[in-house]
Amino acid sequence: MTDIMPTIESTLDTDFLVDFATLSTFGATPRGGVDRQAGTTADGEQRAWLHTWLTDHGFDVRYDLIGNQFGLYTFDADAPYVLTGSHLDSQPLGGRFDGAYGVLASAHAATRAIARWRQSGERPTFNIAVVNWFNEEGSRFTPSMMGSSVFTGKLAAAEALSTVDSAGVSVQTSLTSMGTVGDFEPPKLSSYAEIHIEQGRILENTHTTIGLVAATWAARKFRITVIGDQSHTGATVMADRRDALLGAAHLIVFGRELADTYAEAPLHTSVSQIVAEPNSPVVITREAVLHLDLRSPDDEVLEKAEHDLTTRIAEVEDLAQVDIRIERTHAWNVDSYQPEGVALSRAVADDLGLSHRTMYTVAGHDSTNVKDVVPTVMLFVPSVDGISHNEGEYTRDEDSTAGVAMLTEVVYRMMAGRLSDRR
Amino acid sequence: MTDIMPTIESTLDTDFLVDFATLSTFGATPRGGVDRQAGTTADGEQRAWLHTWLTDHGFDVRYDLIGNQFGLYTFDADAPYVLTGSHLDSQPLGGRFDGAYGVLASAHAATRAIARWRQSGERPTFNIAVVNWFNEEGSRFTPSMMGSSVFTGKLAAAEALSTVDSAGVSVQTSLTSMGTVGDFEPPKLSSYAEIHIEQGRILENTHTTIGLVAATWAARKFRITVIGDQSHTGATVMADRRDALLGAAHLIVFGRELADTYAEAPLHTSVSQIVAEPNSPVVITREAVLHLDLRSPDDEVLEKAEHDLTTRIAEVEDLAQVDIRIERTHAWNVDSYQPEGVALSRAVADDLGLSHRTMYTVAGHDSTNVKDVVPTVMLFVPSVDGISHNEGEYTRDEDSTAGVAMLTEVVYRMMAGRLSDRR
Repeated sequence: MTDIMPTIESTLDTDFLVDFATLSTFGATPRGGVDRQAGTTADGEQRAWLHTWLTDHGFDVRYDLIGNQFGLYTFDADAPYVLTGSHLDSQPLGGRFDGAYGVLASAHAATRAIARWRQSGERPTFNIAVVNWFNEEGSRFTPSMMGSSVFTGKLAAAEALSTVDSAGVSVQTSLTSMGTVGDFEPPKLSSYAEIHIEQGRILENTHTTIGLVAATWAARKFRITVIGDQSHTGATVMADRRDALLGAAHLIVFGRELADTYAEAPLHTSVSQIVAEPNSPVVITREAVLHLDLRSPDDEVLEKAEHDLTTRIAEVEDLAQVDIRIERTHAWNVDSYQPEGVALSRAVADDLGLSHRTMYTVAGHDSTNVKDVVPTVMLFVPSVDGISHNEGEYTRDEDSTAGVAMLTEVVYRMMAGRLSDRR
Repeated sequence: MTDIMPTIESTLDTDFLVDFATLSTFGATPRGGVDRQAGTTADGEQRAWLHTWLTDHGFDVRYDLIGNQFGLYTFDADAPYVLTGSHLDSQPLGGRFDGAYGVLASAHAATRAIARWRQSGERPTFNIAVVNWFNEEGSRFTPSMMGSSVFTGKLAAAEALSTVDSAGVSVQTSLTSMGTVGDFEPPKLSSYAEIHIEQGRILENTHTTIGLVAATWAARKFRITVIGDQSHTGATVMADRRDALLGAAHLIVFGRELADTYAEAPLHTSVSQIVAEPNSPVVITREAVLHLDLRSPDDEVLEKAEHDLTTRIAEVEDLAQVDIRIERTHAWNVDSYQPEGVALSRAVADDLGLSHRTMYTVAGHDSTNVKDVVPTVMLFVPSVDGISHNEGEYTRDEDSTAGVAMLTEVVYRMMAGRLSDRR
């Protein structure tokens, strides 16, 4: 294993920023963001661009059944692969860093690590591959983290492929129209690494460059259906109304009150999606469906918050004369990444002189899936003002390039067998 | 003018119920309602059926520029017309009585009045015409009361024709596809009569058969835009969120509180339409647009309620860290129908032995437009449990047929010049 080679690093850093500027043009929005939901034209364009980039840098590009895009670089046809990547798809009017930064950082880090192995004349324990997971965001096709869920066997490919968007277009159709679907069967992995913007303020507030993600927050997500009855918005006397939108509004307000109640934990809550029927200006809402999210680093607080929610639902049923059904759609407890991965990345950050801290991730990432099948390293770089899922999302050049240097050394050591031995 | 002829009445009453059952099959829904929004296939089918019915009963059927459907019966080519009608279009999953009852009651009443004039050998002062106004409901194409607004010069035909639905289909296209649009220029009117279900409980609670509508409630309608900012539903710390949906929820809850505050007036309030963007389960809402409705028979109470709303909006801007814009889209004070029309219909109800009371209408009707151009009579029949804009909307046979008898005598006397003289 060779020493770090500063000359090559600084040349590649400039390359990274230029490539990132190019990548940010796909689906670019007037206010500095991107709009490239999974399977759209913009997603197809950026995938084609990445395909060319990877091919030009010596990778063999392949697509699996659910459209995950792999760039493989093989030193030893019998060896497993270190995988590194993230996702290129975005939210509607999203930021240009979320996901895309991690994919491009992975492509550059892998390329750089390969160059170092080749210059050293040594052969690494593991091969390396870059991945762009399909549909991490889940805004067009539910659920989110679709590509990595299929990859890790948590979601059946057939179910994912038949999922449709609000216009009735299926995942299968969107993948075919992008031309990025295949029958590639991914090879055996040794480990996985992902880097992502923090989407919070902790690194910025503590003047830290690298977050070493030790665990995910616990989360519970609910689909809540409020059932009222149609009536005339003007003529129906107030006492006769069974207003589903009013019931929904009480729950949205209560969701925020819960966050205030358990602010010390902390507890994050949100309702960001509501579908009202018939949604006419002159007909009282007969049904409102909303998604409510509770997240905390404290499993017990989530338990209490869910209990409080159930109590409040019964009160709102009376208040608004509605019936309310609640279903848990997702629930997970605090879930750790492999401590060996945190130790490895801590050592790298120390060696590179990058400030670091261990932390939780609140958001889900493809690594949340992959860590359940192979040892996984998850890294964060700072987000200015914690802004995310917003066109104003931003990470400073010095931080984004420090992240590339960090990831380069991490995958280099992973290829050397420092996280998982060849078995 | 002849006496009322009970034998003919009872025969026509049976005819009415059979015809109403037939009319209720167009766009029928499994739970006993209808779904026939303006310009849809179901609307076209019922218009074709009415066209045939009117032609079979001796009317000359014509369509104006905005697709209002007229059936004219002319005794004297130089005389103005008494017009009677309502609308056949419905809300999505609406009831079968709202509007349709009034159109069919008008067709039967006019036919019956014509028969009596013909049997009497006398010639009435005025001719008679039946009308089915286009798009009273406004659920597919905004604004509501479109046909009568164009007819009365309150809305330009070109503006109405270019209005599009949420799929981008224009009024012009929908009228052409139904084949019920023309260039008929309606003749001079002497007066107008409309009968409608009450859509409230007053008649039922007071055991009254006929409502004599003296005035409309005052109303103010607002489009409220709540402006927040996109962010991540999980990762963004609560203090940083600018949640437009939370702001909207506070206003929906406050709308109901306003109704409780001024319950004595009474004040009716509602929010029944909300559009949230991007409406993703993982992105805090950046913008929510809602329609808020305030209605009261007391102009001063509306003034106070609007003032309270403005105060609350400033509070919610702070609470949810959002900006809120409010625009009044509609505002009218308590607005009277001609007292001579109420007097005429009161005399008819007394002569027929039908219980009656003067009352307000809370909902708008095509008659609200037409009363501004000619003397207008507006009548109500009871709604069971006040249910409306709902598949469960219902009016008992004895009430619906009493309404037909009532309207028959009203239009008969209007044709005789009892409401407006020939000028």
